Amino acid sequence: MRNIPTDIYIENGAVKNHGGEIAELGKKAMIVTGRHSSAVNGSLDDVKAVLESQGIGYVIYNDIEENPSVETVYTAATAAVKYGVDMFVAVGGGSPMDASKAISMLAKNGIVCENAEFSESESVVKAEKCELPDSIAKVEELLYTPAKLPFYPIVCVPTTCGTGSEATPYSILTSHIKQTKKSIAHKIFPSLALVDYSYLKTSSYSGMKSTCVDALAHMIESRLNTNANAFSRAYAEEGMRLWASCKGCLETDERFAHMTDDEFSTFMQASVLAGMAIAYTGTSIPHGLSYTLTYENGVPHGKAVGVFLSGFLKKYGDSIEAEYVVKQLLDFDDLDAFRDYIRTLFGKLDMSEELWKKDRDGILANPAKLKNYPFELTADVLDDYVRYYNA
Amino acid sequence: MRNIPTDIYIENGAVKNHGGEIAELGKKAMIVTGRHSSAVNGSLDDVKAVLESQGIGYVIYNDIEENPSVETVYTAATAAVKYGVDMFVAVGGGSPMDASKAISMLAKNGIVCENAEFSESESVVKAEKCELPDSIAKVEELLYTPAKLPFYPIVCVPTTCGTGSEATPYSILTSHIKQTKKSIAHKIFPSLALVDYSYLKTSSYSGMKSTCVDALAHMIESRLNTNANAFSRAYAEEGMRLWASCKGCLETDERFAHMTDDEFSTFMQASVLAGMAIAYTGTSIPHGLSYTLTYENGVPHGKAVGVFLSGFLKKYGDSIEAEYVVKQLLDFDDLDAFRDYIRTLFGKLDMSEELWKKDRDGILANPAKLKNYPFELTADVLDDYVRYYNA
Ligand SMILES: [Fe+2]
Ligand SMILES: [Fe+2]
Repeated sequence: MRNIPTDIYIENGAVKNHGGEIAELGKKAMIVTGRHSSAVNGSLDDVKAVLESQGIGYVIYNDIEENPSVETVYTAATAAVKYGVDMFVAVGGGSPMDASKAISMLAKNGIVCENAEFSESESVVKAEKCELPDSIAKVEELLYTPAKLPFYPIVCVPTTCGTGSEATPYSILTSHIKQTKKSIAHKIFPSLALVDYSYLKTSSYSGMKSTCVDALAHMIESRLNTNANAFSRAYAEEGMRLWASCKGCLETDERFAHMTDDEFSTFMQASVLAGMAIAYTGTSIPHGLSYTLTYENGVPHGKAVGVFLSGFLKKYGDSIEAEYVVKQLLDFDDLDAFRDYIRTLFGKLDMSEELWKKDRDGILANPAKLKNYPFELTADVLDDYVRYYNA
Repeated sequence: MRNIPTDIYIENGAVKNHGGEIAELGKKAMIVTGRHSSAVNGSLDDVKAVLESQGIGYVIYNDIEENPSVETVYTAATAAVKYGVDMFVAVGGGSPMDASKAISMLAKNGIVCENAEFSESESVVKAEKCELPDSIAKVEELLYTPAKLPFYPIVCVPTTCGTGSEATPYSILTSHIKQTKKSIAHKIFPSLALVDYSYLKTSSYSGMKSTCVDALAHMIESRLNTNANAFSRAYAEEGMRLWASCKGCLETDERFAHMTDDEFSTFMQASVLAGMAIAYTGTSIPHGLSYTLTYENGVPHGKAVGVFLSGFLKKYGDSIEAEYVVKQLLDFDDLDAFRDYIRTLFGKLDMSEELWKKDRDGILANPAKLKNYPFELTADVLDDYVRYYNA
């Protein structure tokens, strides 16, 4: 049992306040981010300003898509090597943070595309060419084979309150070969996490619902998990109490529009605690079921997980622990109230019979996805997840 | 709000398993310890073996007394500089761990006794001469004046389950000038904490009672504290749940004699969590009252704190939060049951009227000791602490 090794600061102005700590990690950074939100919420400007004030050179790679693929991290790693990068600053939600871990490992080990070409304009690097289907299969094998390989230091600046990736060693990538999302086999903790809730304030209502329920799922799946230990329980339980104190904010557009700074801050803290919790335990069945739904139907991660939570709780053994989670920690009257709450946010689960069977039978056939779960899992039990949620 | 920066491993064989991490911190160590227990419980041998296997040179300073003094840390720092030490490994309870932080800071800044003489035999360093009353006053001023001064890396190997010093930035020293115990003004977190419950197994019954109640006090005083935040609450609450699950072990000599490995391990985890909690909040009134009792009457720290806990809980505002602590987290029927439990361990408080008044009026006149406490504190309220405990 080890304390989370990432140095985490949760505070107003976190990026601006900790330039000195960033400067200790490297001399040339790649800012890893998506195309839009980090520009809108101010986080990208804050990161550029602090790097400049510390005299740290940088390039920007802003082609990280939602659910980043193996191809994307391979391309970005190639750019990182070409531009002499020795540290990464991930800015955004789970996608850039998860991607940065894989990119950092590939770059450090020189796993690059030989025939790539890039252009650079105002520090933004674009791939003009980087396509080698053969080598992608080899890169994927490397990513998904356990090994202790070095990586460059990573700074995470989360701008959503969901993934917790700033405090976990996970890097979940979309594999088109595997036709699903899956965490790589390497455990890569960021060196530094600079967490400022003010970046949440430009979030959309649907974005907040999805990310907040993702964080909730992390806490539930970590608390009810065979790997739970004193640290993970501490984080999950306190995180759920914080989350419960703000859950009303997500119920209507109107209520969301009036969220206070304190409420944004509370969700952000809960999200970090949730990440710290799954760093020890991993997730459980709802996450295991979610990836197919996201890969095949494009359902946002938080919703894809959220629809399976009430079933997971209902079928969790004799449910004494589940009841403690629902009533004591999350402050719902009962499980039906919890289910109704999630349905208010996302509506019913709409999944073809065929896709559901593929998803259900896939998880039942995959021992790795069942190992954190202490009870027997059957097709019947999983069918009840859907039946209960949609009832 | 920052994650505890100390890298903490809680596991069987922690010292042996993490030689590589120790080796990253320095080339020549001073092992800081007391005279007896670290030799008896095996921790000193483990530390010597791992340093030798890593090729790290070392000297041993084993003259750290219970409640170490400013004179002691000054003498040890002088020896550290003389022997070219660049890292410290503290082995034992709160005394060596707290002392090592002050020693490390003094040594790094070259605050040494010019006319000292030491002898060395089998790596054990003894002071033959190191007495300069004038300079002690200056050293004490430096220790108790806030400043950001560098210090050498510190590894903590706790062998008791009480102080939590392995996870805190505190260094509580006995000042003969101030005639009390007080933490120095510098915040010095260990770099590495290697926590192995097996060292607890040679503890005496009275030692376990005192240290375990110290940890309990840290959690209570941190949970009921104006500085509490999400991290401190997470640690304090989970720690109290762990502690409560083993509290029966301390009630009789017979029960203590049959403690299981799991129970030792649980108390050890609770103690680390308790340290992590007070790292954020500091302690509160029971600790504030305890130091005079220890300095003047030599009462062990855990008992000196424990006798004030039930009064602290009884007079804590409208006591709704205190009731949550006592009943939900610590699993006592009511506060009287908690009070009776502590009295079973330690008996009644035996303190002269004169000393009590000095202690009571001292804390009331000291704003620093009241700043974590959200209610008005009066002589009447404090008298009730004693009245309730002794009733
Ligand atoms: Fe997730
Ligand atoms: Fe204490």
